Amino acid sequence: MDKKIIITISREFGSGGRYIGETVANKLNIPFYDKAIIEMASEKTGFSPDYIKENEQKLTGTPLFNFAVSGSYAGNMVFGNGESLQDTMFFAQSNVIKEVASKHSCVIVGRCANHVLEKFDDCINIFIYSNIESKIKRAVEEYKLDSNNIEKILKERDKLREKHYNYYTGKVWGDARNYHACFNSDFIGINNVVDIIEKMAIKKK
Amino acid sequence: MDKKIIITISREFGSGGRYIGETVANKLNIPFYDKAIIEMASEKTGFSPDYIKENEQKLTGTPLFNFAVSGSYAGNMVFGNGESLQDTMFFAQSNVIKEVASKHSCVIVGRCANHVLEKFDDCINIFIYSNIESKIKRAVEEYKLDSNNIEKILKERDKLREKHYNYYTGKVWGDARNYHACFNSDFIGINNVVDIIEKMAIKKK
Repeated sequence: MDKKIIITISREFGSGGRYIGETVANKLNIPFYDKAIIEMASEKTGFSPDYIKENEQKLTGTPLFNFAVSGSYAGNMVFGNGESLQDTMFFAQSNVIKEVASKHSCVIVGRCANHVLEKFDDCINIFIYSNIESKIKRAVEEYKLDSNNIEKILKERDKLREKHYNYYTGKVWGDARNYHACFNSDFIGINNVVDIIEKMAIKKK
Repeated sequence: MDKKIIITISREFGSGGRYIGETVANKLNIPFYDKAIIEMASEKTGFSPDYIKENEQKLTGTPLFNFAVSGSYAGNMVFGNGESLQDTMFFAQSNVIKEVASKHSCVIVGRCANHVLEKFDDCINIFIYSNIESKIKRAVEEYKLDSNNIEKILKERDKLREKHYNYYTGKVWGDARNYHACFNSDFIGINNVVDIIEKMAIKKK
């Protein structure tokens, strides 16, 4: 590829967005960042990757409610510099995202990357969503989640993503205007979405 | 085309959504409905097409504020059956949309058609938006609007569309989840968007 291309993918839980991102990265032969971002960020904060993964979207209030708390609950713990745990993790991850995007073409899934990289003019920002039926199917069959209360669980996961995104970006998660293109992966078809994104990337190179 | 295909296009003002819809309709050789819907609806309500065009999105409040008023302002006039002028126009246009969509393949631009036809399973619902710079360019060069305060005018037009859509559908205008695919026409390119929609339609036939 002649020109650097950064593809960011925001997605509903169970919509196949991660698979789409990874497949596009493979087809374009460029790196794919998801958990890797967490691991790289964790090295900078000193928290373990598992701890960060567990806590990164457990945002329960606005900055006004980010009180320092004692005991084992560190969901919104505030550190000496006034940052909560989530803030620290978010900024660490954002720095990693900016670092890799400065260096080379890549696909980044989640982590508000479209917002973090809003000043980068070589981004293609995509939002992937799906019908609830196919999200349930994917969650149960592929992610092996318990089918009891699965619809409620999926909605809660998306609600967390929405709160996390809206809090850190000041924008509205899922508003089409935040992305260059948005696809219902169930309706369009996962492979067709991959093809469309790949063509967009090739045309932008 | 073997199977009936209805393509609905919602769009920001100046995003090229109408042109995209008309071009897709021409390529697929199916009817295109925009002003024609207004004219057909007007025959059923008794209002002139110009009067409907001028007033259809002048919605200023919720149903609670739809008072009957006297004088020349009929923006929210309530008729004997409890419907405001906007309600009457909306329901008349919705009936026309359902009528044409029941009969044959077509492209329908605006008029909350994605919501009106939500029980039709042969719809492809698209949302088109664009960067403010290209919307201004299109508004001034193609629609010949005065360039003074043009950004403010464009935002007001979209605000009217948003209020109209949200009021009649109970959904959020521009939320990607209301459509099967959404495109920034400036970023993707008008002709590329036309090609993608055409391919989606051909694959669904």
